[in-house]
Amino acid sequence: MEMDQPTIQQKARHFTRAWGWVKALPGESKAKAIKVAKSTQKLGEDDPRRVIHSLKVGLALTLVSLLYYSRPLYDGFGVAGMWAVITVIVMFEFTLGGTLSKGLNRGFATLLAGALGLGAQHLASLFGRKGQPVVLGILVFLLAAASTFTRFFPRIKARYDYGVVIFILTFSLVSVSGYRVEELLVLAHQRLSTVLIGGATCIVISMFICPVWAGEDLHKLIASNIEELAKYLEGFGGEYFQPVEDGRNVKVSNTDKSFLQGYKNVLNSKSIEESMANFARWEPRHGRFGFRHPWKQYLKVGALSRQCAYQIEALNGYINSDNQARLEFRCKIQEPCTKMSTECGKALKSLASAIKTMTVPSSPNVHVENSKTAVNDFKIALKTVSLEQDQDILAIIPAATVASILIEIVKCVERISESVHELSNLAHFKSEEPTVSPDKSQFLRRGSIKPVLEGDTDHFIITIHGKSADSRESENPQAPKLGQRLDV
Amino acid sequence: MEMDQPTIQQKARHFTRAWGWVKALPGESKAKAIKVAKSTQKLGEDDPRRVIHSLKVGLALTLVSLLYYSRPLYDGFGVAGMWAVITVIVMFEFTLGGTLSKGLNRGFATLLAGALGLGAQHLASLFGRKGQPVVLGILVFLLAAASTFTRFFPRIKARYDYGVVIFILTFSLVSVSGYRVEELLVLAHQRLSTVLIGGATCIVISMFICPVWAGEDLHKLIASNIEELAKYLEGFGGEYFQPVEDGRNVKVSNTDKSFLQGYKNVLNSKSIEESMANFARWEPRHGRFGFRHPWKQYLKVGALSRQCAYQIEALNGYINSDNQARLEFRCKIQEPCTKMSTECGKALKSLASAIKTMTVPSSPNVHVENSKTAVNDFKIALKTVSLEQDQDILAIIPAATVASILIEIVKCVERISESVHELSNLAHFKSEEPTVSPDKSQFLRRGSIKPVLEGDTDHFIITIHGKSADSRESENPQAPKLGQRLDV
Repeated sequence: MEMDQPTIQQKARHFTRAWGWVKALPGESKAKAIKVAKSTQKLGEDDPRRVIHSLKVGLALTLVSLLYYSRPLYDGFGVAGMWAVITVIVMFEFTLGGTLSKGLNRGFATLLAGALGLGAQHLASLFGRKGQPVVLGILVFLLAAASTFTRFFPRIKARYDYGVVIFILTFSLVSVSGYRVEELLVLAHQRLSTVLIGGATCIVISMFICPVWAGEDLHKLIASNIEELAKYLEGFGGEYFQPVEDGRNVKVSNTDKSFLQGYKNVLNSKSIEESMANFARWEPRHGRFGFRHPWKQYLKVGALSRQCAYQIEALNGYINSDNQARLEFRCKIQEPCTKMSTECGKALKSLASAIKTMTVPSSPNVHVENSKTAVNDFKIALKTVSLEQDQDILAIIPAATVASILIEIVKCVERISESVHELSNLAHFKSEEPTVSPDKSQFLRRGSIKPVLEGDTDHFIITIHGKSADSRESENPQAPKLGQRLDV
Repeated sequence: MEMDQPTIQQKARHFTRAWGWVKALPGESKAKAIKVAKSTQKLGEDDPRRVIHSLKVGLALTLVSLLYYSRPLYDGFGVAGMWAVITVIVMFEFTLGGTLSKGLNRGFATLLAGALGLGAQHLASLFGRKGQPVVLGILVFLLAAASTFTRFFPRIKARYDYGVVIFILTFSLVSVSGYRVEELLVLAHQRLSTVLIGGATCIVISMFICPVWAGEDLHKLIASNIEELAKYLEGFGGEYFQPVEDGRNVKVSNTDKSFLQGYKNVLNSKSIEESMANFARWEPRHGRFGFRHPWKQYLKVGALSRQCAYQIEALNGYINSDNQARLEFRCKIQEPCTKMSTECGKALKSLASAIKTMTVPSSPNVHVENSKTAVNDFKIALKTVSLEQDQDILAIIPAATVASILIEIVKCVERISESVHELSNLAHFKSEEPTVSPDKSQFLRRGSIKPVLEGDTDHFIITIHGKSADSRESENPQAPKLGQRLDV
């Protein structure tokens, strides 16, 4: 359409637009500067270790640069000193594990490739002046192609990618350098010593000034992810079963709903968890994390948490759907559903805090059992749904779906609980003193009777495992309410 | 327990174990070698471009090395030529976009940092011999710390991370080198020319020998992800509503169930999609991908596909659950549910093929409409569920949940369809000739009447949009069956 209009008008419009843009420039750039400043501040406040890391890199680099600067290197390009600077820049990672992983990769790859390069040079020299470049060319080609291909193996990519790059680099440089072995040894000594200086500077600064441990970060991340799920589930009941008026939901609360969003980060946490676990393997013993800490188990817990997050994502679709179930049915299932969700949330919360404090998780079992009881209560509640409303199956479907997904979440939480218990075994979490006296604890062995730890008084919850809700009801007909408690 | 046993027995056991290990070594290493060979072969067969990429890197490196080797560099460490080798190794990425991104980052960062470094050196020289190292140290510290901090900005991390590293590197090297400006210019010239040689070699080989385009890969990935979802949904109906005998499902088919697993890759595709979109931005016009191809829209389609995959993950929990719904109810909903699922699958399949062939998607709308019709059919079908079975609400919940999740998937597919249409607009997909004659197409404008394109004869599906199933039934009481077709 615009093509048909006169060009002069177009030009004028362009000019006006450009002028407007120029006029707006100072204001805009000011706004932009403020925005950048704010996001910078936020980045730093979110994790002050970022600021410290930046200062650490600056410090390492300044130290190494001045070493380089102060040495009498004016009689050349100062190659050797340069390598110290380069080493610091490429090696210094945010976490100590990352720094060590890069450093060790660099070290081993350089040594191996250096030796191979010397061998290649020696081999090539046997073919005379004319044959030498050809043989060297073939060797470099073969080794570079083969090494590059190994980078496609997922395991090598994850752990040794940097090492392979340095391997190709060093091999090419050494084999092609054309130096004789004696000269090379001097150079290698020079280069190795400066690389060592650079590497040691990185490691020392990284390790002794506010170290950032990848393992600890992974540990905290797994715990906080579980906590995000817990927050959602604890809040879900209140959010879904809001007070209803005139058949429509009344949004009474304008409070912070951020707890409904936190789980979304868990959905995409796979790659970051894997890279952290990978770095964590290189880290030395620190704090309560031993040398053979079961980092793989963290990945398992993480995978199960993601599984739970997927279910929550499905659940979340129903939280504000217009297609709300009929009031009566909702009232019937409100109590057991809220209980399922809340108990799952509590179970996850205590699992998260068990991970955080590295204690053997105990109380979560109670909440898992409670949530299972709630599942049974839900089944019983359904029996009492009055019969004349059979026309309304359609109306109860969304609420029924919510309940059904919650039942899946209960299963999921049980699996998370098992995997966290396994983790606590493998990682030798410290066990807390049991809060029940020995004579009571023999009851606990029977599996179905669990102490309630959160109360002040001693309670036991008796869950009678029955395949169907029927059997349960007949065994315990006088107690159709939730979480039957038997004061001891 | 083991600690209590005699140590001699322990030692003997250790020895036996070690000996067994030694004996098994040749066999094991042979098995391992075969395993590695097989996985190597698989890697190459899965994507032959990996082999080609490795050969390309080998070629580039050989060319640059020989250039370096053949030049008379024996009178020094051959620093300049070395930079060509280093450039090739760090710059050569699998995709052209990756290579270009690194090359441009490297180029701009080097120039900028070089200029700043010279300035810093000049500034420092004003402070005399004693002040110079102090001033230089402070400058390097400040710049390195500030630059390192910028790497925490997600946008900079995604696009310019390598540039920032090279910036710090070059600035430190230049500012600390201690050369006078005239000398530096000579060196800069030398270094820049060799870096250019290395970079140009990479780009030429990367671009002209079997180029791998990140953009094309992203395009194909998005299409194939949608296809995986389609496969699942097309197969779901048959899998869930298997023939039932004696109240238990009979697993008649031992056929390939891989279609049930494909969607799992979609769950974690976020990071790879983002990095590809990031590389794609740097790529020049190629094939049907213009310079301003809407890569962001691909990310939107990808996000919606993931959303759908999360729903499928929730659905997948029910596919083999023991808790199967009562037969009669299942029979009632089988037809509409299978239809919902199949039509969603077909819609996604045609969307995927529209993306692949870069044509404006047309027929998907029909399938989306069909799936919506199936949702209505489902609602009608529920009305006819007989009333005496009201005790069994519990038994129908799993099947009802499946239906409810399928309804969510229908909504999700509709959103995917919309975003693919938007993509086809933004990316100027070519439009196919309409298969309906003009006089019929005016019907189509009314929105609710859509042509069925898959058949040979001309059909129209009339979907009467009504808020509730009731209104629909009263408007069209004689046609309670699925997909009312009106032969024209």
